[in-house]
Amino acid sequence: MPTDQLSTTFAALADPTRRAMLARLGEGEATVNELAAPFAMSLQAVSRHVKVLEHAGLITRRQDAQRRPCRLQPKPLDDAVDWLEEHRQVLEGRLDRLEAHLRTIQATTEGQQP
Amino acid sequence: MPTDQLSTTFAALADPTRRAMLARLGEGEATVNELAAPFAMSLQAVSRHVKVLEHAGLITRRQDAQRRPCRLQPKPLDDAVDWLEEHRQVLEGRLDRLEAHLRTIQATTEGQQP
Repeated sequence: MPTDQLSTTFAALADPTRRAMLARLGEGEATVNELAAPFAMSLQAVSRHVKVLEHAGLITRRQDAQRRPCRLQPKPLDDAVDWLEEHRQVLEGRLDRLEAHLRTIQATTEGQQP
Repeated sequence: MPTDQLSTTFAALADPTRRAMLARLGEGEATVNELAAPFAMSLQAVSRHVKVLEHAGLITRRQDAQRRPCRLQPKPLDDAVDWLEEHRQVLEGRLDRLEAHLRTIQATTEGQQP
């Protein structure tokens, strides 16, 4: 299994429950019980997902009296966006060049018509 | 295992070799042999990665005489960017509100000084 941070981030994102939890945490801190509320799954299963997010560095937990709320950590998500954006820019550059090429062909063809 | 498209996309991205292959395909079509060139791994291992990318819909392969070049498909990557961007915007909104709140506190504190 790859252990680089970007791979760990994408692996953590590869689950709809974990993405829903991150989206919830984007609105503010939440305890595991609060995170579990919308899901029809055991607290144990929810805890496993929370651990995956925590080990991936996507969330941290802090002690607040009897509560241990989870908080989103934006850095790994930012890095994931950066990778995808950089990649998309290369692709868009290609499509722009292809479009320019097709326009040249079209202009040449039209120039040849009577 | 989750089978929704977004989870499949993120799972496919959770490997440095597959991300390097996608980055290479962002520059143009390539055969499996061409994709394998930079990696110190068997052609069989490279083929397995190509299959994961193909099953995830991130690449397609076409027949070109004796060659079967791979081509990048941008749609699933675009959807992944969209999810992350939407998520980041929520988070940034939170940070903006926090900053505004801190400024209010600061202004109030300064107003109370002699």
